[in-house]
Amino acid sequence: MSDKLLHDYNLGEQMNIPVLIKNVVTRTAKTGKQYLAIDFEDKSGEMEGMYWGVTPEEIEIFVIGTVVQLHATKQMYQGTPQLKIANIKLATGKVDLKPSDFITSAPVQRQRMEEEINQVLFSITNPEWNRIVRHLLRKHHDAFYTFPAAKKNHHAYTGGLAYHTLSIVHLAQKIGPLYPQINQGLLLAGAILHDIGKTLELSGPVGTTYTVAGNLLGHIAISDAEIVLAVQDLHLDPNDENIILLRHVILAHHGLLEYGSSIRPAILEAEVLHQLDELDASIEMFTHVAEQTEPGKFSERVYALDKRMIYHPKSLD
Amino acid sequence: MSDKLLHDYNLGEQMNIPVLIKNVVTRTAKTGKQYLAIDFEDKSGEMEGMYWGVTPEEIEIFVIGTVVQLHATKQMYQGTPQLKIANIKLATGKVDLKPSDFITSAPVQRQRMEEEINQVLFSITNPEWNRIVRHLLRKHHDAFYTFPAAKKNHHAYTGGLAYHTLSIVHLAQKIGPLYPQINQGLLLAGAILHDIGKTLELSGPVGTTYTVAGNLLGHIAISDAEIVLAVQDLHLDPNDENIILLRHVILAHHGLLEYGSSIRPAILEAEVLHQLDELDASIEMFTHVAEQTEPGKFSERVYALDKRMIYHPKSLD
Amino acid sequence: MSDKLLHDYNLGEQMNIPVLIKNVVTRTAKTGKQYLAIDFEDKSGEMEGMYWGVTPEEIEIFVIGTVVQLHATKQMYQGTPQLKIANIKLATGKVDLKPSDFITSAPVQRQRMEEEINQVLFSITNPEWNRIVRHLLRKHHDAFYTFPAAKKNHHAYTGGLAYHTLSIVHLAQKIGPLYPQINQGLLLAGAILHDIGKTLELSGPVGTTYTVAGNLLGHIAISDAEIVLAVQDLHLDPNDENIILLRHVILAHHGLLEYGSSIRPAILEAEVLHQLDELDASIEMFTHVAEQTEPGKFSERVYALDKRMIYHPKSLD
Amino acid sequence: MSDKLLHDYNLGEQMNIPVLIKNVVTRTAKTGKQYLAIDFEDKSGEMEGMYWGVTPEEIEIFVIGTVVQLHATKQMYQGTPQLKIANIKLATGKVDLKPSDFITSAPVQRQRMEEEINQVLFSITNPEWNRIVRHLLRKHHDAFYTFPAAKKNHHAYTGGLAYHTLSIVHLAQKIGPLYPQINQGLLLAGAILHDIGKTLELSGPVGTTYTVAGNLLGHIAISDAEIVLAVQDLHLDPNDENIILLRHVILAHHGLLEYGSSIRPAILEAEVLHQLDELDASIEMFTHVAEQTEPGKFSERVYALDKRMIYHPKSLD
Amino acid sequence: MSDKLLHDYNLGEQMNIPVLIKNVVTRTAKTGKQYLAIDFEDKSGEMEGMYWGVTPEEIEIFVIGTVVQLHATKQMYQGTPQLKIANIKLATGKVDLKPSDFITSAPVQRQRMEEEINQVLFSITNPEWNRIVRHLLRKHHDAFYTFPAAKKNHHAYTGGLAYHTLSIVHLAQKIGPLYPQINQGLLLAGAILHDIGKTLELSGPVGTTYTVAGNLLGHIAISDAEIVLAVQDLHLDPNDENIILLRHVILAHHGLLEYGSSIRPAILEAEVLHQLDELDASIEMFTHVAEQTEPGKFSERVYALDKRMIYHPKSLD
Amino acid sequence: MSDKLLHDYNLGEQMNIPVLIKNVVTRTAKTGKQYLAIDFEDKSGEMEGMYWGVTPEEIEIFVIGTVVQLHATKQMYQGTPQLKIANIKLATGKVDLKPSDFITSAPVQRQRMEEEINQVLFSITNPEWNRIVRHLLRKHHDAFYTFPAAKKNHHAYTGGLAYHTLSIVHLAQKIGPLYPQINQGLLLAGAILHDIGKTLELSGPVGTTYTVAGNLLGHIAISDAEIVLAVQDLHLDPNDENIILLRHVILAHHGLLEYGSSIRPAILEAEVLHQLDELDASIEMFTHVAEQTEPGKFSERVYALDKRMIYHPKSLD
Repeated sequence: MSDKLLHDYNLGEQMNIPVLIKNVVTRTAKTGKQYLAIDFEDKSGEMEGMYWGVTPEEIEIFVIGTVVQLHATKQMYQGTPQLKIANIKLATGKVDLKPSDFITSAPVQRQRMEEEINQVLFSITNPEWNRIVRHLLRKHHDAFYTFPAAKKNHHAYTGGLAYHTLSIVHLAQKIGPLYPQINQGLLLAGAILHDIGKTLELSGPVGTTYTVAGNLLGHIAISDAEIVLAVQDLHLDPNDENIILLRHVILAHHGLLEYGSSIRPAILEAEVLHQLDELDASIEMFTHVAEQTEPGKFSERVYALDKRMIYHPKSLD
Repeated sequence: MSDKLLHDYNLGEQMNIPVLIKNVVTRTAKTGKQYLAIDFEDKSGEMEGMYWGVTPEEIEIFVIGTVVQLHATKQMYQGTPQLKIANIKLATGKVDLKPSDFITSAPVQRQRMEEEINQVLFSITNPEWNRIVRHLLRKHHDAFYTFPAAKKNHHAYTGGLAYHTLSIVHLAQKIGPLYPQINQGLLLAGAILHDIGKTLELSGPVGTTYTVAGNLLGHIAISDAEIVLAVQDLHLDPNDENIILLRHVILAHHGLLEYGSSIRPAILEAEVLHQLDELDASIEMFTHVAEQTEPGKFSERVYALDKRMIYHPKSLD
Repeated sequence: MSDKLLHDYNLGEQMNIPVLIKNVVTRTAKTGKQYLAIDFEDKSGEMEGMYWGVTPEEIEIFVIGTVVQLHATKQMYQGTPQLKIANIKLATGKVDLKPSDFITSAPVQRQRMEEEINQVLFSITNPEWNRIVRHLLRKHHDAFYTFPAAKKNHHAYTGGLAYHTLSIVHLAQKIGPLYPQINQGLLLAGAILHDIGKTLELSGPVGTTYTVAGNLLGHIAISDAEIVLAVQDLHLDPNDENIILLRHVILAHHGLLEYGSSIRPAILEAEVLHQLDELDASIEMFTHVAEQTEPGKFSERVYALDKRMIYHPKSLD
Repeated sequence: MSDKLLHDYNLGEQMNIPVLIKNVVTRTAKTGKQYLAIDFEDKSGEMEGMYWGVTPEEIEIFVIGTVVQLHATKQMYQGTPQLKIANIKLATGKVDLKPSDFITSAPVQRQRMEEEINQVLFSITNPEWNRIVRHLLRKHHDAFYTFPAAKKNHHAYTGGLAYHTLSIVHLAQKIGPLYPQINQGLLLAGAILHDIGKTLELSGPVGTTYTVAGNLLGHIAISDAEIVLAVQDLHLDPNDENIILLRHVILAHHGLLEYGSSIRPAILEAEVLHQLDELDASIEMFTHVAEQTEPGKFSERVYALDKRMIYHPKSLD
Repeated sequence: MSDKLLHDYNLGEQMNIPVLIKNVVTRTAKTGKQYLAIDFEDKSGEMEGMYWGVTPEEIEIFVIGTVVQLHATKQMYQGTPQLKIANIKLATGKVDLKPSDFITSAPVQRQRMEEEINQVLFSITNPEWNRIVRHLLRKHHDAFYTFPAAKKNHHAYTGGLAYHTLSIVHLAQKIGPLYPQINQGLLLAGAILHDIGKTLELSGPVGTTYTVAGNLLGHIAISDAEIVLAVQDLHLDPNDENIILLRHVILAHHGLLEYGSSIRPAILEAEVLHQLDELDASIEMFTHVAEQTEPGKFSERVYALDKRMIYHPKSLD
Repeated sequence: MSDKLLHDYNLGEQMNIPVLIKNVVTRTAKTGKQYLAIDFEDKSGEMEGMYWGVTPEEIEIFVIGTVVQLHATKQMYQGTPQLKIANIKLATGKVDLKPSDFITSAPVQRQRMEEEINQVLFSITNPEWNRIVRHLLRKHHDAFYTFPAAKKNHHAYTGGLAYHTLSIVHLAQKIGPLYPQINQGLLLAGAILHDIGKTLELSGPVGTTYTVAGNLLGHIAISDAEIVLAVQDLHLDPNDENIILLRHVILAHHGLLEYGSSIRPAILEAEVLHQLDELDASIEMFTHVAEQTEPGKFSERVYALDKRMIYHPKSLD
């Protein structure tokens, strides 16, 4: 068995390797035949392929989260790598292969992220905020360090939620000292908790989907509810201004009502948290798109960037 | 002392009656002199007047919630009645005058509203929704039946919150049977709770203002938090779909994100509740504006109706 | 010959039944071969299928409104049932099959709808409105009771226009009494006439398309013109306020200029009619989408509902 | 009596001249005193002034359309000339002064405009369009040649409607030959009729206001209704494509639905008429604003030009 | 060899003619096979075809700008003519065939356009504007008379830039005299220079693409920079108001900031130039769409016309 | 003479101090009398006052940039301090008072800002960018270090342009290292030059207004032109990708076309510069508004922050 991974193969090269089915949809072609559209995944990333001539039995076997032996050739389809599948079979003989062996992870180790977050807690000197943050990190401990930050696109890997949270924390630590009028404790508490509701909005690190609660409530309302319950559990005063400020920072962090905030930022820390969240997301997306674009060329129009075409400068590499 | 009230006087007629100061702002004219802009109120409604030549002592005395003896003449200013004030003094000799004697109330008695709401509870057969509604009505009992529904404009009187809630309940009771696919229990539970957070967003029935929590969180997030806490207090399962549906109906009831909903209606009952809320508000505003407009004439542009001018037909009276 | 209809068959089951060609488009595949995309219809509803390998002669025969014998298998394509066609032939031997035997109809009989509408006329006590409504119902009698309300999606069946009109009338009858300030006669006259122009905007109950006048004028302007001509035919005074109010209610019933109203509602009855129209349409669409979605699942994004995904609650069934 | 007119006086100079009251509003100052805000007019244009200390009798006398003797001084107020009124009295001794002696007129004589319009009719060779245009010009003959095109701002003078119509006709005559694909007859018929409804939307040349029909229907729907009635009066076929095209050109001439068109231009002539209408209006507004702005300076923000500030170049004079 | 060109063939007719590859993209079908999507061009216009079963060698040979011998049949695909390709080979034996023999050109000869533009220069009497225009026409002489005005759609042919420029010049010459307040010299100078930056935004007349500078700067900024450099080269005063006005007219000619103007028109000539540019573009697009639509039918929705469907009247032909 | 400055006085306290007239407008009250609305300024900031009963001679003397002796009392007007003026006279006896003694300055000394900027230049290692930045800083040296960044509101003081520029530079220096994919040289060069055109858009540090070029071209186009001329002066290649990237970063730095960018950010550094510019501006505005708002209160609606009300938390001070 080869040690090469999905993205190590060249165009036109054949592979025969174990991979994870990250997502799969059964479709019917116009001609009436069924096929599977599968997203395969291993530690090197994801790649899509169509599995033609699938049998009804295979449709029942090849579900999300299954490890399979993939025999295929790598090709290009509309500017994206795609697999031409020769065949797929269950990787049954290889009992030691667990789905978690195949999923990509944050570029930083979980242990180091935990240490960093724990370190940040000391900068939140206000006792209410500090207790609430500790309480919720404890309550959602495993999910917080293993969930992705989104179903796909940005930070869509194991540990992505904690990694994205840490990016915002780092920005806050750098920018706070330039503007002494910013309350650093509130900004950091808000940064750590702003996406805490994603631990309930998403289904988990493998085969991630939105939960019913995620779709019907949204992670902002879920995050707010978590704080409200924490306040009750910790016997804090829900009418204390500090509690209201922390809830405001979370409720307002999407900035505009159109983006799902139920209220617009009315204090400095809420505005700054919102802008740092946006800055980190933009940098992620620009970087991702530029990497997939040849130097000296423009990308296709990127929907998530308002349909802009991104340029990969050849002179900056 | 006359028995006539503020709105019983004709244009140009003098009055000398006890009234309540509903709202007051100290202003400085361009000439540098200070004056008070006062909203007076009694059971007949509100009327504004400027009190010129106010002394510093009077500024400290004539605060929101004070009962005063008003000596003034009724006039028109830009199409609205206004008071030309001769003088104001504390209504000190009249010890039996309480602020609550002067505030306008819902057109229906509190007791009858309570009875109606209690009756509606029997139509909410789902036990989780029924218990949550009862729990929250009990928790906010007094505020729910005495608060206005808004600081000004629509349903801005004692009991306005319960009265507006009942209007939505009545619409739901009429429309539900026309469309059997509507879950009547969910619609009614949503109708009763949709503005429950106003009991914390507003300061109370007299001299109503927005609380800090009201401004920083908004009544939608406050209402949602109340349900979340009720679920915990009643030891219900927060992941039960029924609980999530009820929260969704509340979170989505402003319809559009731009109007402060953190999520758009995704189930029929949420969409219907949103539209009934809008229908009742529109009817209230059209009625109010038309009443203040002469038959055969158009109103000024109404900001809250997207700057439309409303026509008062002369042939429909 | 089987008595089963299109929607009575299970997935994978073969059928050989007479059906109507509701709509048909000739297309060329990328490979250069022509095929027909056909919407078939019988009393159970519609279903689509691609007819591959069609001959030039067949293209000329299988036109809109033809009754054919369909031999096919039912399958799923992107979440929607679709027919895999074995062959189609003219249902020539069955001389008794008329196109009208195959089209779906409103859930209420035409006769009962006529009776109900006739009953409503007694509530329109104003003689001008009453005469105009009667005049136009007489003028467009057949079309009004047989046309659909739209080419597709909502109320797109024989009698759909009258059925949709009656839904608005029912809403008006229920809501009017809750708000005595609404002029019930004007609201009902507006409700009956608001879509009368669809009798000229659409081509008819079978193989419905937009007429040239429909596309170039729109049903709002057509409806208004019908009232203007009725006023002249009935020798009424076009400058009577009652006439102007009725025209206003029709012209404004889409609410926003962006939705094709040439004027925004400026009287209460116009605003209420607009909102009831929207309410009925929303309920129709939510119900339709939820029915086609599995309990516990979200629909695909629905374009006509601003791309929302609709949830089918499993606990409410 | 001086022969000088309103706009012939310099700043600070006194005048004592007969003028017309074009518009008047009674207002109450914050101090409770009433005054009149009057727009005066003579052949040189309009000018505003406040009449302080007005008596109740004077309020009844100084109504719209009255000729008065004005004793006042010209001043500047927020960049606009304004009258400081010493006193006003009825110009009773001057029995020969008619309101029409004081209103401004189009820069072209009515007779010449009639001749030009009559000449244009020969270019409309299609008999249906020609007959409809003749019919409606005859029906609204006097109003068409005396009404303004708007209550204020652009073409707000006697004959303004015909003058604005002629400007569009001239543009059409110049541009048509550059693009032979334009149907010149349809464009000219549309140009002449596009604002014909203003003869019913506005009240007349003196003291112009919007009629109730104008406010509730809008001039686009009124114009369309006039064509519909003309078709009936002339026994033309309402389903003839030529009739539908002419109606479309009128219904679509505001271009965007947001601007009150009930349909967007779908044929070339409708699009061109819309753009020529906009071009003429823009040129009018730019010219008017630049004239009132000192060379080398920017105007205040102009609401009707999307709040732009217009520059009056000093080097182009 | 036939003398017939691409668009001379009827549906279903075979052709075997030399054509130019205007554009070509390599694609992979879902089945994994590669094919070429080719835009062919000759003097009669463009037509698309898919070349199935292409070999890797052919992919390297059949690049943009190649003259090939095309053996194909004309068909319709979704309302547009398309080629069903039998085979393609290099037109090697025909040494005299140059790419420029196959590209479509403006309907007016280059020489005549040069003469017209040179004539217009005499109407620009202001010496600064005259010298700048002459300087830039000289600097970009060849590109100005050979480049298209766009990559595709409107004026996308050799000489299209000069042709579109002349259309605007003609409109300006016609409309200017109707409004004497327009400075004709400034309007004409602006008309000639408004798209001069396209000589650097686009790559050239054959196989036109956007340059990197074109995509990253846009032709408005490029045009402005060209004027700024001309001013320096001609030793003119950059602070002279005439220079600033000319730059303003160019910078503002897209009218709205959303369309890429960096400033909105603040002088009459800038507003007029913007509207004439829009008028010419609209007429072009309506004409083009109507030509491709059958009389009595509506087009598909046209993206560049805000998704409107355009009608081709049958009675106007 | 007192040493206290404008903002050192308490409410109701009298002052008699030399101040600068920063801005002055002559107005006419409704009563017809003229007065001056004056913005006074000294090192402590600005304050407004109305000067009633002004004589024509005084109007000519009290112009922008005059130092006067102000005798007045400090009051509050609609939540803002305002001066009740007793009298004003020329500060003629005090020959040593220069306007520049009264204007507020950046919180950092010019010399230190120069040193910091000079230090940053070493981080711009690309020779083209480095030479262009040096060239333009030299060309606009004095203006760059003395101009404000805006006419009013944010950074509207001497040296404000350099101070704001340095804030962006500091943000870039902090954030760059967190994302190694950012080209630090390009980001820094863009940060220094992004507002360089303000040296020509604004009139200078005293009595700042917009120049005609500023209003007609905007500072983005002016900045771009400066770079284009620098490239020519330095004999660099205008088609070098590095030059185009630098121009792009400047042209795109307002982010959205609606905000005046002629192109949207298409490379990472352009997006980041835009967001840092926005972040610094938001922090400035929030800080400024919160400072002027009492702890525990909300501000009035702030136009420049989308009409939001900003909260000044009492628990964070």
